Amino acid sequence: MSIPSGFQFSTAQCGFKRPGRSDLAIVISDVPAVAAGVFTTNRFQAAPVLVAREILEAAPSGIRAMVVNSGQANACTGQEGIDKCRITLELLSALGLAPSEILPASTGVIGDQLKMDLWEKGIPSLRENLGKVGLVDMARAIMTTDTFPKMATREVTLAAGTVRLAGFCKGAGMICPNMATMLGFILCDAGVDQAWWQAALVRCVDKSFNAITVDGDTSTNDCVLALANGTAVKAESRDLAVLEEALLEICQDLSYMIVQDAEGGTKVMRINVYGAASLSDAQLAARAVGNSPLVKTALYGRDPNWGRIVAALGRSGATFVPEDVIVRIAGMTIFRQGTPVKADWDSLLASALRRDTVDIDLELGAGEAEITLMASDFTEEYIKINAEYRT
Amino acid sequence: MSIPSGFQFSTAQCGFKRPGRSDLAIVISDVPAVAAGVFTTNRFQAAPVLVAREILEAAPSGIRAMVVNSGQANACTGQEGIDKCRITLELLSALGLAPSEILPASTGVIGDQLKMDLWEKGIPSLRENLGKVGLVDMARAIMTTDTFPKMATREVTLAAGTVRLAGFCKGAGMICPNMATMLGFILCDAGVDQAWWQAALVRCVDKSFNAITVDGDTSTNDCVLALANGTAVKAESRDLAVLEEALLEICQDLSYMIVQDAEGGTKVMRINVYGAASLSDAQLAARAVGNSPLVKTALYGRDPNWGRIVAALGRSGATFVPEDVIVRIAGMTIFRQGTPVKADWDSLLASALRRDTVDIDLELGAGEAEITLMASDFTEEYIKINAEYRT
Repeated sequence: MSIPSGFQFSTAQCGFKRPGRSDLAIVISDVPAVAAGVFTTNRFQAAPVLVAREILEAAPSGIRAMVVNSGQANACTGQEGIDKCRITLELLSALGLAPSEILPASTGVIGDQLKMDLWEKGIPSLRENLGKVGLVDMARAIMTTDTFPKMATREVTLAAGTVRLAGFCKGAGMICPNMATMLGFILCDAGVDQAWWQAALVRCVDKSFNAITVDGDTSTNDCVLALANGTAVKAESRDLAVLEEALLEICQDLSYMIVQDAEGGTKVMRINVYGAASLSDAQLAARAVGNSPLVKTALYGRDPNWGRIVAALGRSGATFVPEDVIVRIAGMTIFRQGTPVKADWDSLLASALRRDTVDIDLELGAGEAEITLMASDFTEEYIKINAEYRT
Repeated sequence: MSIPSGFQFSTAQCGFKRPGRSDLAIVISDVPAVAAGVFTTNRFQAAPVLVAREILEAAPSGIRAMVVNSGQANACTGQEGIDKCRITLELLSALGLAPSEILPASTGVIGDQLKMDLWEKGIPSLRENLGKVGLVDMARAIMTTDTFPKMATREVTLAAGTVRLAGFCKGAGMICPNMATMLGFILCDAGVDQAWWQAALVRCVDKSFNAITVDGDTSTNDCVLALANGTAVKAESRDLAVLEEALLEICQDLSYMIVQDAEGGTKVMRINVYGAASLSDAQLAARAVGNSPLVKTALYGRDPNWGRIVAALGRSGATFVPEDVIVRIAGMTIFRQGTPVKADWDSLLASALRRDTVDIDLELGAGEAEITLMASDFTEEYIKINAEYRT
């Protein structure tokens, strides 16, 4: 894996999670980096989200570090939670960092106040491990119910030389009672303009992390943070398209892994909406299908159930003429002109429905807008995990 | 049970469902009745929905009968489906009815054309059984995956005398591949104005059938039809409030039974939203919570999981200040001022969470609008039913 230059990693075991597991991670850039962030739109926002937004706004080109703890979400903790979040940043002076140059994030159980004694105990080993751990250790330290660490890297050749991007994330459904669905962190050693970096991140997140669904729930802690430290070469205007493409690929790789790791999930459906009257119509259609428990259970049951897809589409609120709609499953046209295409779909689609990823194409015939949404299936295991995981 | 006067029931076994089960039902009014209907808003509408709308519009005060078959939904069947629906109405001339005075409804497997030979075979026994079956037989004949017949009756004393209402319905989740979630039929022997009857039905359905959710899916065949034949006494202006209240109770009794019979469901949650800025905000809040797989699995797991409720509320799109929100489960305040109320909720709520019905109160503190939504829980059994039920 090619890691961007000028970044150091560290992790520690504080005891927020079960013993023997890393639960604190920090990325430190050797020099102040250009930062970008995309945050949850949930009205209940966790303390670290509020604090990170404020710090990012104050110094978007002067960020040195991102610190993440897992096991405690610091959400629904009121002013005390915000105060404690700020104290954790002050503790990092032991690593030569000022609070104003660190972006915090948390994931885990909500409602409890941060265990400050555990933080204090963890700082020395965080300092000691600096530069001694790799990307996979970072990805592992931020896991909660994830079953595998999630990371992606890219190398891109720009006009002036090569730059690298690396990303890691956590997420596997919105688990009780930690509302923290997903966190994503991206590093880059290119030199970029801050406004462009922020805008590029927003565009890429829209086509990746915002285009996946496990159970339709969004959390109080969700965020994607990205640092570009410029320690390799500067990106020129003509480099921006290729750099953004690499950023998008990182985001899409990571978000695909989240759906792949969906709680209890056995497959990923890729819902491709074409011909929608508008982007928001395309989203309505894709989300209605991707969040429908009936479509999700049919996928799990390997049932080419166009009826459930069509019914979800019909109630989505998207505009279209029913007779113009075409539905394809795994590339085969199964519904058009308001009626099913007669065929023995059970046999024809048997092998396609055993695949890990199943494409569902929805042609609405109402315009030009398109979108792709990744969604997991629904299984007994999902129910089990979410009914038995207690507060 | 007190059945409205001037109506006769009949059922037949045509063979749309498994042998030995009634699958065709008709209500005939002795005289032309005032009719009202509320139909699915799904963009894909089944043939009987399209035909019933047309007939209702042409003669809203001249309806003699409602006919329902179960086992075949006649949805996504194109022009052929509409033509065949009309032919089924013509077949009913054997019972002295004209097509223009009959409202049709269907529920069952979608995509297949109606089996007209089975219809023809069923008509003689439909004629023979007329007046020989009761309300429970009607409710049973329209069942698909329902586990019990659903009906309700009321007697109301008006100024001029007593009138009766009776209703029956089917519904237990939107089952694959029959998209026909629910059908409701209501009879009344009061004399009413058609415009008032239609408006009252719309109001009552909004507070009952439109205020329940099993899996968030709405079908292509949903409808509630109501006939008032005036064979008892005429409702005067001063009677309308009490009559509408009885109509609402019938609708609420029936819709509660649908949630109670939710596929795989073990309990009903009654989500009461108070203090919303608008009715649509109240609906957004209630539906986000009632459709959240995480809330539904927590309920199943008897987990007083305010975190999932708060997270669903936060992403609902309803307007509120997080600090103003109060969440109560089974009457106990569990969350307020942005933080959880500290207590041993597992013990305090243990018995309440074992009940069949659990109240979840959401005080938004943003206005005056209120709504109550009934929702089922989510269980392994739901997944099993919906993954294994094949096309």
